[in-house]
Amino acid sequence: MPLDVTYKLQVPHKPGQLQKVAAVIADHKGLIGDIVTIHLGRELTDREITVEVRDPQHGAELAASLSGLEGVRLVWHHDRAFLRHEGGKLRTEAVTPVRTPQEMRDVYTPGVARVCSAIAENPQLAAKFTSIGRTVAICTNGSRVLGLGDIGPVASMPVMEGKAVFYSQFAGISAVPVLVDTKDVDEFVETVVRIAPSFGGIHLEDISAPECFEIERRLIERLGVPVMHDDVHGTAVVSVAAVLTVCRALGRDLGEVTVGQLGLGAAGYGIAALVAEAGAAAVVAFDPNGDSHGRAGEAGIEVTTMDDVFARADIVVATTGRPGLITPSMVRPGQAILALTNPIAEIDPDAALAAGAGFAADGRSVNNVIGYPGIFRGALLAGADRITSGMKLAAARAISELTEGDDLVPDALEAAVHTRVAEAVHAAALEEGHARPDQAPSGL
Amino acid sequence: MPLDVTYKLQVPHKPGQLQKVAAVIADHKGLIGDIVTIHLGRELTDREITVEVRDPQHGAELAASLSGLEGVRLVWHHDRAFLRHEGGKLRTEAVTPVRTPQEMRDVYTPGVARVCSAIAENPQLAAKFTSIGRTVAICTNGSRVLGLGDIGPVASMPVMEGKAVFYSQFAGISAVPVLVDTKDVDEFVETVVRIAPSFGGIHLEDISAPECFEIERRLIERLGVPVMHDDVHGTAVVSVAAVLTVCRALGRDLGEVTVGQLGLGAAGYGIAALVAEAGAAAVVAFDPNGDSHGRAGEAGIEVTTMDDVFARADIVVATTGRPGLITPSMVRPGQAILALTNPIAEIDPDAALAAGAGFAADGRSVNNVIGYPGIFRGALLAGADRITSGMKLAAARAISELTEGDDLVPDALEAAVHTRVAEAVHAAALEEGHARPDQAPSGL
Repeated sequence: MPLDVTYKLQVPHKPGQLQKVAAVIADHKGLIGDIVTIHLGRELTDREITVEVRDPQHGAELAASLSGLEGVRLVWHHDRAFLRHEGGKLRTEAVTPVRTPQEMRDVYTPGVARVCSAIAENPQLAAKFTSIGRTVAICTNGSRVLGLGDIGPVASMPVMEGKAVFYSQFAGISAVPVLVDTKDVDEFVETVVRIAPSFGGIHLEDISAPECFEIERRLIERLGVPVMHDDVHGTAVVSVAAVLTVCRALGRDLGEVTVGQLGLGAAGYGIAALVAEAGAAAVVAFDPNGDSHGRAGEAGIEVTTMDDVFARADIVVATTGRPGLITPSMVRPGQAILALTNPIAEIDPDAALAAGAGFAADGRSVNNVIGYPGIFRGALLAGADRITSGMKLAAARAISELTEGDDLVPDALEAAVHTRVAEAVHAAALEEGHARPDQAPSGL
Repeated sequence: MPLDVTYKLQVPHKPGQLQKVAAVIADHKGLIGDIVTIHLGRELTDREITVEVRDPQHGAELAASLSGLEGVRLVWHHDRAFLRHEGGKLRTEAVTPVRTPQEMRDVYTPGVARVCSAIAENPQLAAKFTSIGRTVAICTNGSRVLGLGDIGPVASMPVMEGKAVFYSQFAGISAVPVLVDTKDVDEFVETVVRIAPSFGGIHLEDISAPECFEIERRLIERLGVPVMHDDVHGTAVVSVAAVLTVCRALGRDLGEVTVGQLGLGAAGYGIAALVAEAGAAAVVAFDPNGDSHGRAGEAGIEVTTMDDVFARADIVVATTGRPGLITPSMVRPGQAILALTNPIAEIDPDAALAAGAGFAADGRSVNNVIGYPGIFRGALLAGADRITSGMKLAAARAISELTEGDDLVPDALEAAVHTRVAEAVHAAALEEGHARPDQAPSGL
């Protein structure tokens, strides 16, 4: 598995040095990423150079070669991800610090008692005078984390923190990872229901199928706040945005396009169901696991063979978790292929294009970070009691409309896109009558 | 119940104006607090003047009089606490924002997967590479909030946010309010146990007695991290610190002093038990509720009549929740009285002194915010698996030693005190063999 290693080098401060270093990295077939100057001395410069290498062994070999360069000192080299994770990625803090006795009286006793009493009398005031309405719990049991499978709740924490980082940065939402230590559906649901008063929304993450469907269904039924399993719906929104972008590139309307879905797990089911809702001419799907077929049928998805999917679909979306599943011979000329399994796709986009595909992309082009922050922000801003298909489709359309150039969806780092997604979801909630403006939180 | 009202006034920018306003406030017997200039114009000045008034009616009367002042415009007046609570007091955010594609690769896919895998292989790494070890859950069911009683979880949120604000500000700890919607002991315990992997410690707050004792006992038994009910132990630490300060003022050693405790609820039991641990010559207590007597006996507290408490105790601590319970005739000459019930004490300190008390104070002098942040910081820094009596006593002694002048405990806004408390608790954990340095979190 490739990784990004940062090499801290001390090199003479004169022309030609970086070229020398770059040559060594090229010899090792490392891909150079960021180069950051850490210290500029009169004679020596400290730089941190990041290189994508094949594996730790490859990284160590490059380190040895760099150490051997004349005049160059390798200070250290580390896997960047670990450097960045040291101490964790999240913190909770005061919106405004408390500096004076008066402020102490405001935020704590005696002032706080009056606010508590007011909320006790009128619980709706919690949306205005607490952070509940702009806080989302990211709940997981760690039973299906990325491509790693069931690693349990604690080991999944870095993913949850990452999700929360983007909530904060792109949507102004406080997100709190809640690691739920059970794989039992009843226990999971009961636990989340009991702590739900703390939060304005429940984001489910990395829970294995089929339990995730039942957990989400029951939580939606029991809680009057937005509940969404991101692996199903967030991924679906972003993938349907990508499908809409492909349609535009192909000059075709979704209503005249057949979409094929390979894999009906959490992500695949979500995509196929939402693309059906979006009005695709037909949605045909393949999954060897029969458990998924009933659920698919109810969502208007026709389950068939893999061959039939390739025979009929104009756009094939694959979320199978099986790298290399699609061979060039399966690809029909002109067909669009979105092979989304990470980190290694069902078929390499270049191979698909070589096999005659009219369009091809892999999971790196469809970053689901572009979806959930704006979706939840829109739902919370509306005071919505749920996240509907209409709200999800509004998000997908907004994402696709903001896509430029050759991209399938916009860059997740573009803050304006998240704002636009939130606006679209908010508007859809209003339109559908799911908004409750008196329950919209202050401070979001 | 008194409250702080802020009046925003527009007054001519010339001498004598504030005097005129202050005179009106004095006529109404309002207590002036902060005066903040918001806008300095050439002819007009906007000021926000905070006044402690008896009740909302009193505040409205003052508003009417201020409006009637010639040349003065009352722009608005509001209960300050509500102004400060708008939008809530807490937020969760990234320790470092994500600005570049490389940073996205570090905190999210693909980098995050390597960190998850490493933790899955060696769970101890979670202390280093996640925020778990420096995050505390503040868990409540809102069954006994301040003097308000059982107002339920949602209405208790402003208190929990306040507690979290101080965790962040004074101890660098991320604290997350967790509102647990059940009064059933089993359900509460199960819920907290299931979500405990998310946190490095469990702070219990505002849970009614006697359930709080059982809940705390079971959580300590089941979780290998610090668990502490602040209403019992945090209050006890700060109150015992106050008792130590009183001993110093009286020139006596705790070992030769009899401490009397009125009320054996959560706070009273905690205080009496810790002062017994601290080595008081004797601890005698009164509580009409027989349920508390067995628990008290086990902690070395002698339960007796109220008369006997006053007859024998050198220092009487009262946490009865019953304003005015202590009449002047009960007070023995030279006795020290700490009447801690808020907002109205068992006896006014002035009345106690007039009755011959050698020392008297009420709850305003014993702010429990000076305790818990440093206690948890010390425990977390040590990687401790629990909070022991030794650690609590170390905190109480540190607090008392840092007290200056006429104070019973230091001002909670003094950041250095919290640091010192944490150091004392950390040192005690090391000394007692409860520290696990390899499990101490990074980033605290």
